[in-house]
Amino acid sequence: MKSELIKQSINLFVEKGFSATSIQDIVDTIGVTKGSFYYHFKSKEALLMDIHSHYIDDLLKRQKTILDTEKSHKDKLIAIVELIIVDIEKQGAVGRVYFREIRHLKEENAAVIRQKRADFRNNIEVLLKEGIRANEFRRELQPKIITFAILGITNWSYQWFSVEGSLTVKELSAMYTDFILHGIQSPNASN
Amino acid sequence: MKSELIKQSINLFVEKGFSATSIQDIVDTIGVTKGSFYYHFKSKEALLMDIHSHYIDDLLKRQKTILDTEKSHKDKLIAIVELIIVDIEKQGAVGRVYFREIRHLKEENAAVIRQKRADFRNNIEVLLKEGIRANEFRRELQPKIITFAILGITNWSYQWFSVEGSLTVKELSAMYTDFILHGIQSPNASN
Repeated sequence: MKSELIKQSINLFVEKGFSATSIQDIVDTIGVTKGSFYYHFKSKEALLMDIHSHYIDDLLKRQKTILDTEKSHKDKLIAIVELIIVDIEKQGAVGRVYFREIRHLKEENAAVIRQKRADFRNNIEVLLKEGIRANEFRRELQPKIITFAILGITNWSYQWFSVEGSLTVKELSAMYTDFILHGIQSPNASN
Repeated sequence: MKSELIKQSINLFVEKGFSATSIQDIVDTIGVTKGSFYYHFKSKEALLMDIHSHYIDDLLKRQKTILDTEKSHKDKLIAIVELIIVDIEKQGAVGRVYFREIRHLKEENAAVIRQKRADFRNNIEVLLKEGIRANEFRRELQPKIITFAILGITNWSYQWFSVEGSLTVKELSAMYTDFILHGIQSPNASN
């Protein structure tokens, strides 16, 4: 029931937005009463926080698994880009809610999520810094700004990419890692 | 008065979102009555459409000016990226409303805006295609997908870039055109 409430609310938030979706709208989609909603969540905001927390905690965990391997900086970066892009297939809707509705969290909750987002971003920034030091990536790059560019490419894909089109998420991911690597690799880096 | 209504509503939409902002909220910020609002706009949605139309019409006009010059494909692309990024300084707030609130337009209005967005995007796609044909850009690129990557980088900047930071929009624009050109330029293109 809880997972069904989450699933249906994500669909409604994508379609109508968080503000315009009522708890009544959510329970109506699965034919239960408001009581069932309040059994699982204190409020609509609590549900939104649940969606945000699970999403970023899961991303951070999978990012850590990648960073803990013995791969090159380049291969770790490829794996992180793939992680975000391939996720569109299963997490496209939740990603759109995550990127769009954070301002509807209570300030104390938004602060928690913002910190976790910053952690995810900082991990990429550190990876770029280390890759520059290892001469894999170009010396003149500003890691922080390039991290935002990479996340711009991946996160924007959640806005436009349709899993019903002819391009697969794997193909999109390959094109974007190729583009990003051309953008950052040191001319004398081995490929 | 009309421009003041637009300006204040953009600030409120950025802060609270379109759905959570009432016409009363908007008129309260400048101390006028709802009557003044309705003198200029039929509804809150009509105001949102006005914001969307002006924003994209202006971008399309300036993009056309760039495309009508005799520059190389590379230099035209640089100019378009600069156009979007440097705009953050003056149009940051309206850009955020534009990217985020289109779903609150009536379907017939949203369709008009979506078509203009597609025109802006297609113009970049055609530029990339022609640049590939002219051997300025790499042959293996898919222009449509790379266009989305470029717009991901530029449009995402509206989410995170702060004009109060130490980096200027000009510097950001230079870093991103460098990154994008490394990503797409043909190895045998002259620089």
